[in-house]
Amino acid sequence: MRNTGFGHVVIVGVGLIGGSLARALKEQGAVQRITGVARSQQTLDRALELGVIDAAESDPASAVKDADIIVIATPVATIQSLLEVMSDAIPAQSIVTDAGSVKGSVVDAARNVLGDRVGQFVPGHPIAGTEESGVDASFSTLYQDRRVILTPLEENDVDAVETVRDMWETCGATVVEMPVKEHDTILAATSHLPHLLAFALVDFLSARDNQREIFANSAGGFRDFTRIAASNPVMWRDICLANREQLIPLLAEVQGQLATYASLLESGDSEALEQAFQRAKTARDELPGIVASGLTGGRDDDGKDVEE
Amino acid sequence: MRNTGFGHVVIVGVGLIGGSLARALKEQGAVQRITGVARSQQTLDRALELGVIDAAESDPASAVKDADIIVIATPVATIQSLLEVMSDAIPAQSIVTDAGSVKGSVVDAARNVLGDRVGQFVPGHPIAGTEESGVDASFSTLYQDRRVILTPLEENDVDAVETVRDMWETCGATVVEMPVKEHDTILAATSHLPHLLAFALVDFLSARDNQREIFANSAGGFRDFTRIAASNPVMWRDICLANREQLIPLLAEVQGQLATYASLLESGDSEALEQAFQRAKTARDELPGIVASGLTGGRDDDGKDVEE
Repeated sequence: MRNTGFGHVVIVGVGLIGGSLARALKEQGAVQRITGVARSQQTLDRALELGVIDAAESDPASAVKDADIIVIATPVATIQSLLEVMSDAIPAQSIVTDAGSVKGSVVDAARNVLGDRVGQFVPGHPIAGTEESGVDASFSTLYQDRRVILTPLEENDVDAVETVRDMWETCGATVVEMPVKEHDTILAATSHLPHLLAFALVDFLSARDNQREIFANSAGGFRDFTRIAASNPVMWRDICLANREQLIPLLAEVQGQLATYASLLESGDSEALEQAFQRAKTARDELPGIVASGLTGGRDDDGKDVEE
Repeated sequence: MRNTGFGHVVIVGVGLIGGSLARALKEQGAVQRITGVARSQQTLDRALELGVIDAAESDPASAVKDADIIVIATPVATIQSLLEVMSDAIPAQSIVTDAGSVKGSVVDAARNVLGDRVGQFVPGHPIAGTEESGVDASFSTLYQDRRVILTPLEENDVDAVETVRDMWETCGATVVEMPVKEHDTILAATSHLPHLLAFALVDFLSARDNQREIFANSAGGFRDFTRIAASNPVMWRDICLANREQLIPLLAEVQGQLATYASLLESGDSEALEQAFQRAKTARDELPGIVASGLTGGRDDDGKDVEE
């Protein structure tokens, strides 16, 4: 069913991620209809008003009973309880997928809840977002030229995986597949660990006597570096806890790296320090380009190279 | 001499920082003439061609012999040797200032070289920059609505400090004064430590077996967070070494903070973790706004709040 007729798609969680998926699928004429599910009536009303969804449901179980594809686009910590609520109502031929930032804990939840029907669940994670959240921030090109990682289970039918892949490709994304654990290791490194470091730095600085002066004298580099520390604390608490098995050893290794830098500073080993910085710069300069989507323009100019 | 007639200004180092200062002063009609000093004839030719400077000199000593104000706008590690070269040629009535990112080591250098003439030296640091470097990247509004920190010495005449303050205010900057050590403590926190953390993270990740996959699956948050790791390794080696007395204890404290987070993750203490993240978010959200100048547009939109 490549690029045509995903049928009745139910999107649970109509925020930036779910709303943008809905917009993209509708824009491509790739669905019969989209039902949006949210706890808040205000979100549902707004999603209807914006034309993001065709029908609104506050009860997940009622919503999914004639779904072809069910996409759970809510924070990771909510996925197990949502699956529990929907489980009995999910039709046997439906495909269920998600957009959670951690895959191990989500797969565990799906196995717990769905049992021998877990083959219906294709775990997914679109690597996309903007500085906004909520259905008002959603836009149809969010996934254009972005990556979506699928971590298929051995119980998945090839066709089910293919359908989820098609769905994201229809939205303009590049879809890659990898094992659950590899996903969680990589995301721990590229997303969860940086968030922890940013939270840690700002938390630590905000406790200092001179915090007012510190923040008053910060410049653009500091703002970029700490931007992710403005992220939702509850959501990131849940992500970090869900992926703590990958995250804890990485934290230890980063501490070791900082200890190494401290000892290079103490001994005044300028050659080793320069080599370390140069390795980092080389790796950072080689970072593959991210094609800017509408709302990320201006973010991809790189190479800050001045003293501040 | 508020806002008029800074006379003959000699700018040593005609890059982004020195070039932008020259442009701003000329645009305000606040100087008789500007002599630029650089090691590279190509830089000097280009600065003349762009009209950034009125005269070019490759020899610092010749350049400064009839200067009213001498601004050293080169990396911190070069300041002592430049002062040594210029020392005998600096007129007794000239004011010397700098734009270095660390003030303690620069003040030590000035005391070493200038001895009882150190009162002529007013230490300064404009908190400004863009992702570009070099004279071609310079622009007259770089300092508009940005901070310049002066760390006056007890040997400085009030008039000398006032003149340097006037010079930066003429360029549109807000000038604040603070003790040398306070400057270095604050900049260690807002600039040098974040650079070390970014270098450390990217250096550490680049050494991993799966580094290709890690970088391939990174998104905007990671790019923002690691942008400063693309900075000049030699310049940052020198800054970190010059400010290591402030930096080493901060590094130890951040390691302690990370150890705390690791133990919260291990014990699954979701309440304490959320509180820590919330403290950071609150502090980050309250960060004073930076008014965007020409080249920093698009950088100050904040509040990334989505899973990646």
